[in-house]
Amino acid sequence: MTTASPEARVRELGLQIPDYSDPPYGGRYGTMKPFHRAGQLVTLSGLTPETRDGTMLHPGRLGNGPTDLSIEQGYAAARFTATNLLGLIRLAIGSLDEVCCLVSTLCFVVTTPDFTGVNKVTMGASDLLVDVFGDAAGRATSAGIGVMSLSRGNCYEMIATVESRT
Amino acid sequence: MTTASPEARVRELGLQIPDYSDPPYGGRYGTMKPFHRAGQLVTLSGLTPETRDGTMLHPGRLGNGPTDLSIEQGYAAARFTATNLLGLIRLAIGSLDEVCCLVSTLCFVVTTPDFTGVNKVTMGASDLLVDVFGDAAGRATSAGIGVMSLSRGNCYEMIATVESRT
Amino acid sequence: MTTASPEARVRELGLQIPDYSDPPYGGRYGTMKPFHRAGQLVTLSGLTPETRDGTMLHPGRLGNGPTDLSIEQGYAAARFTATNLLGLIRLAIGSLDEVCCLVSTLCFVVTTPDFTGVNKVTMGASDLLVDVFGDAAGRATSAGIGVMSLSRGNCYEMIATVESRT
Repeated sequence: MTTASPEARVRELGLQIPDYSDPPYGGRYGTMKPFHRAGQLVTLSGLTPETRDGTMLHPGRLGNGPTDLSIEQGYAAARFTATNLLGLIRLAIGSLDEVCCLVSTLCFVVTTPDFTGVNKVTMGASDLLVDVFGDAAGRATSAGIGVMSLSRGNCYEMIATVESRT
Repeated sequence: MTTASPEARVRELGLQIPDYSDPPYGGRYGTMKPFHRAGQLVTLSGLTPETRDGTMLHPGRLGNGPTDLSIEQGYAAARFTATNLLGLIRLAIGSLDEVCCLVSTLCFVVTTPDFTGVNKVTMGASDLLVDVFGDAAGRATSAGIGVMSLSRGNCYEMIATVESRT
Repeated sequence: MTTASPEARVRELGLQIPDYSDPPYGGRYGTMKPFHRAGQLVTLSGLTPETRDGTMLHPGRLGNGPTDLSIEQGYAAARFTATNLLGLIRLAIGSLDEVCCLVSTLCFVVTTPDFTGVNKVTMGASDLLVDVFGDAAGRATSAGIGVMSLSRGNCYEMIATVESRT
C-alpha cells in the first residue's frame, strides 16, 4: 500500500503522460472543448488510445476470431487511454495531486457480437487509476459498453468526471 | 394514485430487492466503486439483470429472429435491473424513502442491426421506477441505446443518478 | 465573430425550433421526463432527428455502402437534432439567452462495423451549438459513439447538460 502522492506515483510507475497544453488540446477536435469545470466537479471529453500525433494503439475490434484484438490488447488500449486521461486532468486542474477523487467513468469498447469480456478490457483503465490515486480516491463508478464503432477506428473510448480538492 | 412511501410501495408490489451490503457489493467488479455521493447527488455504477450469484435474466440479443429475445423478455430484464438499482440506492443512502427524485438514466440494450424498439425495452425499468417513487419523483431524464455487447452476455445495462433529500 | 444573443442568432440563422410546450413534450415518451434542473445544472433527455409528429430525418445507418447514409446526411441529422435540443432548452429554462454555457454532450450514431467517421457526424450538432451560443459558451465536452441501433430507426441521438445563468 503506497502513500505516495499521485504525481509521485506517476514517477514511480514511469508513466508517459502527454502534455495537452502544448500544443493545445482540442485543436483537432472541432467544436468541442476538452473539459468543463463547475465548482469542484470536472467533466472530461472523450479520450482514446491515441498519441498526440494521432497514432492509435491497437485499432480494431475485440473478439474471439483470429483477426480480432485480444483481451490483453484491449486492456493495454484502455490503460493507455487512462494515461491520456491523466494528461487531461493536469490540463484541467494543474496537478494530479489536486484530485480529490474519481467520480464516474463510462467506457466504450468496439467488439464483435459474441464478445462477453467488456469488463476485462475496461479494467485496463480502472486498474491504472487505482494504482495512481489509491484505492479510496481512484475508484470511479463505472459502466462498460460494447459498441459498433469509434472515431478513426479506435477500439476504446472513455469519458470521466473527477472531483478536485478546491 | 398511491401515496405510499417508496419502501411501503416496494412491499405492496412484493419486489425482491437484493441486499448489496452482505456480501459487500463490488467484490467481483474489480477496481470500480458501486456509487459516488456528492452532496445530494448520488451517481450509481452500471447495473445488469443479474442475481447476486451472477445468474443472468434473459442473456442474449433483442431482435426479430427466432433465436432473438422478444420485447417482453427485454422489458422483464430492464425491470429486473431496476430492482437491482433499488438495492444499490439503499446501499448508497440507506432507504428508498430518502430519495428526493430520479435525475437521469442511460440505458443500453443489446440488439440486432434492424431492431427499432429500444425504447419499449427500457420502459421496463422506467415503469417500475415510477411505480415505486410515484409520477413526480420517479421519472428520470433518459436515453436508450442499442449496443453491440455487454459484459458476460447480458442483454441490458443501465446507469443512473438520483437526488437524495438530505 | 457575432455578439448577437443566442435568441437573436437563432433568428439570424432562420432556425426552425420546435415548441415543446404545446403539445407538452414527453407525452409519447412513456415514463421518462424531458429535463431535470438542479440549481444551475440542467440535464436533458435523449434527442433525435425527429419532427414533433415523429417524421425522422435520414433514418438508417452511416457507412460506406451504396444503401448507407453519407457523412453529409449524418451531419444534417445531428444538426437537426441540435435544433430540437434548443427547443428543449427553451422548455427547461425559458430562453436560450438564459444559457450560461454548454457542459457536456454524449452523441450516438448508428453505423456499420467499418465506419470510422463518427466525429464528422457529431460535428453537425456541435457546429450549430457554437454558431448559436458562440465559441466560449457553445462548446461542450463531448464523446461520439457508433452504436448498433436507436429507437424507431433513428440514425442519431444525443444527451446534453447545460448550465443556466441563474
